[in-house]
Amino acid sequence: MRVMVGGTFDPLHAGHKKLLVHSFQAAGSGGDVTIGITTDAFAGSKTHPVRPYAERMHEIEEFIRESGVAAEWHIEPLSDRFGSALEADFDVLVVSEETYPVAVEINERRRNLGRKEVDIHEIRCVLAEDGRRISSTRIHRGEIDRYGRVIR
Amino acid sequence: MRVMVGGTFDPLHAGHKKLLVHSFQAAGSGGDVTIGITTDAFAGSKTHPVRPYAERMHEIEEFIRESGVAAEWHIEPLSDRFGSALEADFDVLVVSEETYPVAVEINERRRNLGRKEVDIHEIRCVLAEDGRRISSTRIHRGEIDRYGRVIR
Repeated sequence: MRVMVGGTFDPLHAGHKKLLVHSFQAAGSGGDVTIGITTDAFAGSKTHPVRPYAERMHEIEEFIRESGVAAEWHIEPLSDRFGSALEADFDVLVVSEETYPVAVEINERRRNLGRKEVDIHEIRCVLAEDGRRISSTRIHRGEIDRYGRVIR
Repeated sequence: MRVMVGGTFDPLHAGHKKLLVHSFQAAGSGGDVTIGITTDAFAGSKTHPVRPYAERMHEIEEFIRESGVAAEWHIEPLSDRFGSALEADFDVLVVSEETYPVAVEINERRRNLGRKEVDIHEIRCVLAEDGRRISSTRIHRGEIDRYGRVIR
């Protein structure tokens, strides 16, 4: 299967890792995964500071290499919320609950462009020690670390 | 992975088969798949006549055996839109676009019950020869057959 997944991935936390691992599982050993990473300009609209693209990309590359996953993969910059997902020939879009609406929008636009719609895998967030979601915002606020441990 | 999927499956068409095959792929060889089939009483609310539960179940069993899939599986009757999905310990709910709202409702109720929410895999409908969706309603209307061929 050809799978796409995207995000800002800063810092790469347990929820992001779950998304990435699922993407490779869904692709299978003969498949491929395209990982979109928001550009610094696009990620600049976040409410918290974001580390440079190269650093975020490096962290993802390292995680993928350590995971021993089998599918082909490549990284592309996302300068808007769609990236190449409107045009690319692929099968599955992997999203979180928060980004599910973007997946619906991508399918609507693909339909209008006469392109095949894609399956959507909506992966649950990983919960932190306190039972609430792990998110970059919470990590940046200093509430939890990237593993979901509460910072006291 | 522990996967759940449900439906009326009458007749078992290309879209249903895609849902079932995906469910087994998502489960993997060590996983298990629970297939919920609507009871005759519950399916009776459909706008078209539905074949008896035993016949629909038999068709699914035959398809699974022919598919050579690897996961454990079992079938359960669905007498409402949730079946055991509110209580069961599982990982992934496989739905179509049409049943996605039920999956969201299941997760909301699971959250309120203090249970783990599950990932949702929303699988695209299969298109018929005429580029529109294959659905039981269209088959019952005599517009297309279960393989999506247009009946002229």
